[in-house]
Amino acid sequence: MSSSDIFISETIGTAVLILLGGGVCAAVTLKRSKAFEAGWVAIAFGWGFAVLTGAYIATKSGAHLNPAVTVGLAIKGGTPWGDLPVYFAGQLLGAMIGAVLVWLAYYGHFKAHLSDPEIVGEQSGQEGMVDRAAAPKAGPVLGVFSTGPEIRNVVQNLTTEVIATIVLVLAILTQGLSDDGKGVGVIGALLTAFVVVGIGLSLGGPTGYAINPVRDLGPRIVHSLLPLPNKGGSDWGYAWIPVAGPLIGGAIAGGIYNLAFA
Amino acid sequence: MSSSDIFISETIGTAVLILLGGGVCAAVTLKRSKAFEAGWVAIAFGWGFAVLTGAYIATKSGAHLNPAVTVGLAIKGGTPWGDLPVYFAGQLLGAMIGAVLVWLAYYGHFKAHLSDPEIVGEQSGQEGMVDRAAAPKAGPVLGVFSTGPEIRNVVQNLTTEVIATIVLVLAILTQGLSDDGKGVGVIGALLTAFVVVGIGLSLGGPTGYAINPVRDLGPRIVHSLLPLPNKGGSDWGYAWIPVAGPLIGGAIAGGIYNLAFA
Amino acid sequence: MSSSDIFISETIGTAVLILLGGGVCAAVTLKRSKAFEAGWVAIAFGWGFAVLTGAYIATKSGAHLNPAVTVGLAIKGGTPWGDLPVYFAGQLLGAMIGAVLVWLAYYGHFKAHLSDPEIVGEQSGQEGMVDRAAAPKAGPVLGVFSTGPEIRNVVQNLTTEVIATIVLVLAILTQGLSDDGKGVGVIGALLTAFVVVGIGLSLGGPTGYAINPVRDLGPRIVHSLLPLPNKGGSDWGYAWIPVAGPLIGGAIAGGIYNLAFA
Amino acid sequence: MSSSDIFISETIGTAVLILLGGGVCAAVTLKRSKAFEAGWVAIAFGWGFAVLTGAYIATKSGAHLNPAVTVGLAIKGGTPWGDLPVYFAGQLLGAMIGAVLVWLAYYGHFKAHLSDPEIVGEQSGQEGMVDRAAAPKAGPVLGVFSTGPEIRNVVQNLTTEVIATIVLVLAILTQGLSDDGKGVGVIGALLTAFVVVGIGLSLGGPTGYAINPVRDLGPRIVHSLLPLPNKGGSDWGYAWIPVAGPLIGGAIAGGIYNLAFA
Repeated sequence: MSSSDIFISETIGTAVLILLGGGVCAAVTLKRSKAFEAGWVAIAFGWGFAVLTGAYIATKSGAHLNPAVTVGLAIKGGTPWGDLPVYFAGQLLGAMIGAVLVWLAYYGHFKAHLSDPEIVGEQSGQEGMVDRAAAPKAGPVLGVFSTGPEIRNVVQNLTTEVIATIVLVLAILTQGLSDDGKGVGVIGALLTAFVVVGIGLSLGGPTGYAINPVRDLGPRIVHSLLPLPNKGGSDWGYAWIPVAGPLIGGAIAGGIYNLAFA
Repeated sequence: MSSSDIFISETIGTAVLILLGGGVCAAVTLKRSKAFEAGWVAIAFGWGFAVLTGAYIATKSGAHLNPAVTVGLAIKGGTPWGDLPVYFAGQLLGAMIGAVLVWLAYYGHFKAHLSDPEIVGEQSGQEGMVDRAAAPKAGPVLGVFSTGPEIRNVVQNLTTEVIATIVLVLAILTQGLSDDGKGVGVIGALLTAFVVVGIGLSLGGPTGYAINPVRDLGPRIVHSLLPLPNKGGSDWGYAWIPVAGPLIGGAIAGGIYNLAFA
Repeated sequence: MSSSDIFISETIGTAVLILLGGGVCAAVTLKRSKAFEAGWVAIAFGWGFAVLTGAYIATKSGAHLNPAVTVGLAIKGGTPWGDLPVYFAGQLLGAMIGAVLVWLAYYGHFKAHLSDPEIVGEQSGQEGMVDRAAAPKAGPVLGVFSTGPEIRNVVQNLTTEVIATIVLVLAILTQGLSDDGKGVGVIGALLTAFVVVGIGLSLGGPTGYAINPVRDLGPRIVHSLLPLPNKGGSDWGYAWIPVAGPLIGGAIAGGIYNLAFA
Repeated sequence: MSSSDIFISETIGTAVLILLGGGVCAAVTLKRSKAFEAGWVAIAFGWGFAVLTGAYIATKSGAHLNPAVTVGLAIKGGTPWGDLPVYFAGQLLGAMIGAVLVWLAYYGHFKAHLSDPEIVGEQSGQEGMVDRAAAPKAGPVLGVFSTGPEIRNVVQNLTTEVIATIVLVLAILTQGLSDDGKGVGVIGALLTAFVVVGIGLSLGGPTGYAINPVRDLGPRIVHSLLPLPNKGGSDWGYAWIPVAGPLIGGAIAGGIYNLAFA
């Protein structure tokens, strides 16, 4: 496949992934949304079906949509190393486009939410900090864009992201069927989506499960650029963990695959 | 396929779609329903499985059940333009039949709900209006039939419907398998259903996600005709948005497909 | 297939269907269950996956598990009329066995629940009656076994059961794939399960969706026979509606199929 | 397949099963988790998708992940009796590894939870005991690792585990497709996952549905070894029931299969 085909497919697929994934965070977080406070089951299925929809649309490029998956597949030997920059570029651009689309789809709700006096107070507050009292709080509006830990600790947070990403990438690498053509691709998208729902339900509790570097970084960049009043900081001090953790996890999953299943 | 086959299949399939979709709105909205206040997860899965069931029944005609899908497929080149009026007519008729069936299935509950003094007061109230204080309120009974925005603003509401419909139609157009025969049609129905659950969870917050012109217009016509006491107005001022938005979104999805994936 | 094969397969499959279906009612209803008050989403998915599991086990006999399905398939021409008594007998026996298994699995919880003074009072109470003040109340323990209407009215309740069953049986009859062998049978079981989840979410509000004569009658017989103290009446006055409604619905679905899709 | 291939595949698959299954228990139980108190629907889907993910990864060895399944398949004739020790060893080791990974992923949350004065009090309390007042309480932290009954009674608890496991293993044995190759394996994993969701929703109420000896025993061993302050006892008095019940259930399912379906 040509580089431009990969780039376009990954960009559009990742944009849809982040549009629906960020969308469910907006839906349950922003005041006056019909899905306000719909709960963690909604979040987990929302992200799972975001993966399903993005993957369904991007089957042409293999629907990685995630640099950790691309790294795992490269280590397994399924994706040429030279294609990685194209995959990464499409994924990051797509994640940023998706975050902008969430903002457009929930424009009025962001406006109403951020002008709520109670929220504005919260944004600048320091509630919930445990281990690093001076860190910027990941307030409700940043939470629509990027992940943040409930208990802030570099080693713990990184460990959680590494473990969760190993599960995701190992499941994708071991699906015996990933090379059998289009039909299998669709079934693979379905099962991967449910794997993501499962990771969200089971391992999302501590850090909000980025398990994908661009899922966190792309929307965080957009958060820092958008002209949202009272939006608070973008918590750049935490930003490297949901990038490094998933990349490490994807590489370890590739290694486990080569040792145990190849 | 003959026009009458298309018409019958789309009519029955869309009737089932609206019966189950409107049904879940009735189930969580109307007092004394066993599913009263079952929450947004119930709504999103209810509509998703409404699509699944309608599509499963209408595979004969390709199970569009939605003019936005028909427009997208016509732009892609999969549906002859001359067939559009037949598809549209069946879809609108089916949506109206479905809304009548919801009324019959929940007849006693509509009666009990609308004679509740608390509800009757709400129906004529003006709570929740933001940008257009004089607009008719989309009260709980109209909500069983048609969509309404939480924050009323033409540009914002239209944008949300356009974005959400692009996701739906693009997912249908890019499923590499849509032309491979019946078996694939069933898997396609399953995946499309989960895409609809995902759109509901993620992008349903602002407007209630019509993403289908007849899903909103057909039941609204029925609402305006049914002899329900205290039913309130049918909010015709908003009615064009869930028709125009999905049609625009379906056309844009067709264009994206032709540019990026064809 | 021999009659004894049909009988055994339908008996076991229906027993599993009612064990899991009645089980979820016990799980959310009986005090001190870990799933107590888990809500309508739990009920709807519980019954859907009950169908999935029973159907998965009974693929040998086509996994009807429901006289309304058997009638619909006979009208379509897929099941010989002479086989109906064998199907019906297996289904009714299986439903009774399933209800006994629910009682065994929740034995301690029935005991604890029925000795709760608050519940014992409720069982003999008359709350919730609207149209027939003298009717026996479908209390929480009967609700583990059989369905009951929220608003009691013969015509309304029958209409709801007829409409909901038409949807179920029509979806089964129109699945273009039901005759293609085992693999399709499994996918068919999956989609039928989600159709049942959808019917539960959407049309279960008024009557609790029997949509299957033996699902209601078998457990009701068991309820009337079990030595449960304070169990209350078995509401035999309502019992014919969830038998007649689904049978009428199955027959109408068969007719619609022959007119519109054959 | 070689013994070492079986061992490695079952170890990794069961580790993932318990990581995600124990993970969802941690997610809804431990204070300051984002999924805190997400409810029984989250638990049931979390365990179901844990099975899906583990099975998806371990298709190479047939993805038993459960001694009760292995016993059932051996009785059916699909797994050589001589392979049982290898399956069991891999499953038990995997379950222990999975429990350790849950502890690592939720390390900070265990620490915060167990230092909460309210919880520490609960751990040593005797609330909720009915039939055996002197038994150790299965407190919230043991509940992350192993199952415990709501109403403690040997015969009742054993009966519930036997019945629930029969359903699971019978569904796996009767899937007509389990021998047809890899593609079917994936669909089988999907349907088995939903069967597990169904069992959780329907039969999990009394005992928390071990339905798998190593799912309970492995994490209980880890619980007894981990250096968690205030962790309370490991309730070894109950530990034999979730081992014996599932093994008996698996054997009975194998017998039913051979009598009724072979």
